[in-house]
Amino acid sequence: MEIDHGALITDAAEAAGIDINVPCGGQGRCGRCAVVVENGNARRRSTMRLSAADLEAGYALACQTVVEGDLEVFVPPQEEITRHLTTEKTAAKVSVPFDYDWRAHQTVLKYFVEVEPPSISDNTDDLARLERELAKCCDIRGLYAPLPMLRTLAQMLRRADWRVTAVIDRGGECPRLIDVLPGDQTTNLFGAAVDIGTTTVTVYLVDLLSGEVIETAADYNGQLKRGEDVISRIVYASKGNGLVELQTLVAETINKLIQRTTMRRKIDPKQIYKMAIVGNSTMIHILLGLPPEQIRLTPYITTVNHPPQALAQELNLNIHPLAPIDCLPGVASFMGADITAGVLSSGTHASDTVTLFLDIGTNGEMVMGTREWLVSCACSAGPAFEGAGVYAGMRATTGAIEEVWINAKTYEPTIRVIGGGKPRGLCGSGLISLIAEMFITGVTDKAGSVNLSLPTQRVRQGEHGAEYVIAWANETETGKDIVITKPDIDNLLRAKAAIYAGYVMLAQSVGMTMNDVEQMLIGGSFGQYLNIEKAIEMGLLPDLPWDRFKFLGNTAARGAYMALLRRDAREEIAEIAKKMTYIELAADNAFTEQFMAALFLPHTDMTQFPSVEKVLEGQEAQ
Amino acid sequence: MEIDHGALITDAAEAAGIDINVPCGGQGRCGRCAVVVENGNARRRSTMRLSAADLEAGYALACQTVVEGDLEVFVPPQEEITRHLTTEKTAAKVSVPFDYDWRAHQTVLKYFVEVEPPSISDNTDDLARLERELAKCCDIRGLYAPLPMLRTLAQMLRRADWRVTAVIDRGGECPRLIDVLPGDQTTNLFGAAVDIGTTTVTVYLVDLLSGEVIETAADYNGQLKRGEDVISRIVYASKGNGLVELQTLVAETINKLIQRTTMRRKIDPKQIYKMAIVGNSTMIHILLGLPPEQIRLTPYITTVNHPPQALAQELNLNIHPLAPIDCLPGVASFMGADITAGVLSSGTHASDTVTLFLDIGTNGEMVMGTREWLVSCACSAGPAFEGAGVYAGMRATTGAIEEVWINAKTYEPTIRVIGGGKPRGLCGSGLISLIAEMFITGVTDKAGSVNLSLPTQRVRQGEHGAEYVIAWANETETGKDIVITKPDIDNLLRAKAAIYAGYVMLAQSVGMTMNDVEQMLIGGSFGQYLNIEKAIEMGLLPDLPWDRFKFLGNTAARGAYMALLRRDAREEIAEIAKKMTYIELAADNAFTEQFMAALFLPHTDMTQFPSVEKVLEGQEAQ
Repeated sequence: MEIDHGALITDAAEAAGIDINVPCGGQGRCGRCAVVVENGNARRRSTMRLSAADLEAGYALACQTVVEGDLEVFVPPQEEITRHLTTEKTAAKVSVPFDYDWRAHQTVLKYFVEVEPPSISDNTDDLARLERELAKCCDIRGLYAPLPMLRTLAQMLRRADWRVTAVIDRGGECPRLIDVLPGDQTTNLFGAAVDIGTTTVTVYLVDLLSGEVIETAADYNGQLKRGEDVISRIVYASKGNGLVELQTLVAETINKLIQRTTMRRKIDPKQIYKMAIVGNSTMIHILLGLPPEQIRLTPYITTVNHPPQALAQELNLNIHPLAPIDCLPGVASFMGADITAGVLSSGTHASDTVTLFLDIGTNGEMVMGTREWLVSCACSAGPAFEGAGVYAGMRATTGAIEEVWINAKTYEPTIRVIGGGKPRGLCGSGLISLIAEMFITGVTDKAGSVNLSLPTQRVRQGEHGAEYVIAWANETETGKDIVITKPDIDNLLRAKAAIYAGYVMLAQSVGMTMNDVEQMLIGGSFGQYLNIEKAIEMGLLPDLPWDRFKFLGNTAARGAYMALLRRDAREEIAEIAKKMTYIELAADNAFTEQFMAALFLPHTDMTQFPSVEKVLEGQEAQ
Repeated sequence: MEIDHGALITDAAEAAGIDINVPCGGQGRCGRCAVVVENGNARRRSTMRLSAADLEAGYALACQTVVEGDLEVFVPPQEEITRHLTTEKTAAKVSVPFDYDWRAHQTVLKYFVEVEPPSISDNTDDLARLERELAKCCDIRGLYAPLPMLRTLAQMLRRADWRVTAVIDRGGECPRLIDVLPGDQTTNLFGAAVDIGTTTVTVYLVDLLSGEVIETAADYNGQLKRGEDVISRIVYASKGNGLVELQTLVAETINKLIQRTTMRRKIDPKQIYKMAIVGNSTMIHILLGLPPEQIRLTPYITTVNHPPQALAQELNLNIHPLAPIDCLPGVASFMGADITAGVLSSGTHASDTVTLFLDIGTNGEMVMGTREWLVSCACSAGPAFEGAGVYAGMRATTGAIEEVWINAKTYEPTIRVIGGGKPRGLCGSGLISLIAEMFITGVTDKAGSVNLSLPTQRVRQGEHGAEYVIAWANETETGKDIVITKPDIDNLLRAKAAIYAGYVMLAQSVGMTMNDVEQMLIGGSFGQYLNIEKAIEMGLLPDLPWDRFKFLGNTAARGAYMALLRRDAREEIAEIAKKMTYIELAADNAFTEQFMAALFLPHTDMTQFPSVEKVLEGQEAQ
């Protein structure tokens, strides 16, 4: 095939229909798009992530290499994304946790009406006839009937012998006609709540009459192959057709999940008449086709925090084309609808006690407050706790080490692996557990440096500096040692320091300290597998009595579900978004200071971690 | 090429990219799609309009002939539609005829604002920043920004250095953002008023600041080649892809006229931010993509008489894609927005005296009333006065005979031809003039029968019965005699009888007679060329003193223009539509009686035409 001189190999590959994953979004940062230039003229703009040996062997980063003439390129098989998600398997059956009566709370409703057939003496138009009946029976006035609806109205009324069910959205200024169905179809009504995570998309199929979640499905966000974190996605969206491509990918993911849930229940996806969506601001911008560039550029401005209602057909979502798509409001570039929805569903905004709400995903967002006030901030923790940026890191799927214990005498580890088989790497909770154990047993010091003088082969000098071996090659799935290196530890320390500094900044902003926190609520699927003790020992969670912690699971999806059902819950989220003060940490020197102070295990100021001090004293006493 | 067995020749031709005109919409009624089947298997479903000689020569109606095997078809050259419209040439410069101040009256407005650039300490989203400024300077609250607008907002604000002109539609429930332009662009603002006639489409390009019409353009409705009258269009729209095709054709016509007017003024069509449209209910249904079938089926029901506002992009209109398209409201299937707009612009609804408003186009619609009441009816006059259904009939273009005088002694005619050259046929005013003269001079009797015993070669027995020769072959452009036949006269009598019966029915419905009409207003371009004397003599207009008649030109387009400019005029049309009583004549026996009584020249009841009686007496006295 032919491609313009000066194009990137990734562009050429895409034009040729070859899929090359670029997890960092094409920044040349991750090295995963390496290909072999076998012949011809190519110019490497960056060789970051490639060794001298790699270069000698012809390796080049597809996203950083320019075509300068005829070229033969070999694309090595790339790491597959495992398609088994723990979230879907473990997703708990959600029952309606609050009072719900569709007549009182729902905005999308069905009405069965018998329209009077026209005659020469009563020859008003079809729409007016329908309106007349709806006004009479259901007090609906000023109905807005969009064109696509009107285009089928005449035929539908006659086909159905003038007995029809009108589906109407009463959420806006004027009631809006979404659909007209033949006969009485008021016995069912469906909606969907969707959580678009940077990594995972979750869909709840909801019976809008009973309010119950009748099916749940989750899968990786299809955008993953175009960047693993939010910044990579923004970078990708800013280039060429990137935004449209990412929009299509996430819409396809949602459509697949809708398809999966409706098939199980033998429902036509077109019967879904309402969708409420949460996600961070970048995910929502991309879904809506809004360029997200400014989100990552100082002073970090979104196009819109309270998106207008969209229609399914505008976003290529395969439910009823005129169904309202309600993207819930966020607060700022790094304080999205996932957090306002989380505040709602966690009850933070209605709490009598001082509450700290934390959602650790790819970023760490947190909100502190009571029913009187709410302050929030976001820490760019990076995806270290999701297994990225760590040599042996992986997502929480089969083969991931999720818990580690180190024998303080022999320094030999004991591990627990998801699925029970041979390990392949470490997921977030495994990494936290490992770092805490290494620190407590003296494998590392406060600064995270591995003590190479220990009498064990588990510590050694590796290619990337000092490292600790968690599993030997013959014990692993991959046939290679699983190790944690100094750069890995530094990455994890930076992530936890950013989060801890965030707590302190929030508390300080309202003249408090961490000891004033009476309740700590942790959302996000990650939270579910967190070991409080270990998380405190590494300094990721504040040193509070354990009974102050509560794990809430997917608070974002739950918030979307509440907003899908109840008009007042939807209004409450808007109130939360309006009320919440957002503190931008990026340019704050005080944050940098707090961050530096937290870059140790568990912290430079040990008075903030009295329980850990006690454990250490215990260790030394042995 | 290949086509399915059983397809029509018209379908096959379309698939092959060959354009065959079907003026009657494919009903086999007009005979103009005749082709020659030279070879192969075809089955004629109908041979109406073909003579035995035609059939022998291989002629077949393309719209009525089914392909039943390999086929060779010759398509004879078809009548071209002349592209020179008198309406455009003669369109008078329209100056603002009423008080207009865009600040007070216009619903689409431009606002120049200087938005405060964001900073770390003021990091609200782009849309909220714009809203803040619009609220401050222009008291705009609750702004709705549609997705396509939001998609360009971030870039536009920054590109324009935060100094932008917002274009806002304040016509609906919430102000709606249509466009954001760089810098101060408040010095111009454009809109368009459009009249979609069954035959002719007229566009006024309007300066929404001064209120002046700055350009006018008119052309044939592109749908003409798919049917000449409303019924043919409905038939065509009901088959296969017909509706989409007709929608595309009329949108293309409008786009061409927009292009023509904006080019003359060097304006980008995207600068047109508002459009008001009038047309009969069928034209409006097709433009909106609404199936028009029910309009022609008893009891004649439209999908909608008050269409919702549409966006330009929904209708494929090439002005600003988010510009509001306001299709003005009608009253019934055969009482469309062209008439409500005509009532508005004629002032019928605000008159102190009893007024009869008449619009003769392809149909004859009429409204009687004062400021207190309005009654209306529509007569299916057929397109006889537009030159169709009459052997020598043609549109009012170059070569059309527009006026005829007959010498009562010699029976020799004198004619006036549009353009001054040789005649090609007769247009509507020419036909009226001719019939009146023939009657007055005794060439025909009251029943329209040609008196063959007259001492002149001008009357003779022709192929279709008795006929009168208006021009001999050597005097004409076509080299053939121009004649009027008995069937032609019958057609014209039926058309005028339908209209006259309409007057009587309206007057009777409010307990009046025609003598109570104090003012008669005639709209439609046809009216402009009407000779009152002749029209009364043939019984098309009621026998009132001549000073009671007023010709108003294109009242429909003028009403659209008023509604485009003034919010209150738009509301007035809605009021007119609501207030107007529509009388359905189709099923009314009293109408049939009146129709039968009017099927004579000028009428069976001569007491209704005293002035004509006098003229006849004068003739006899000579």
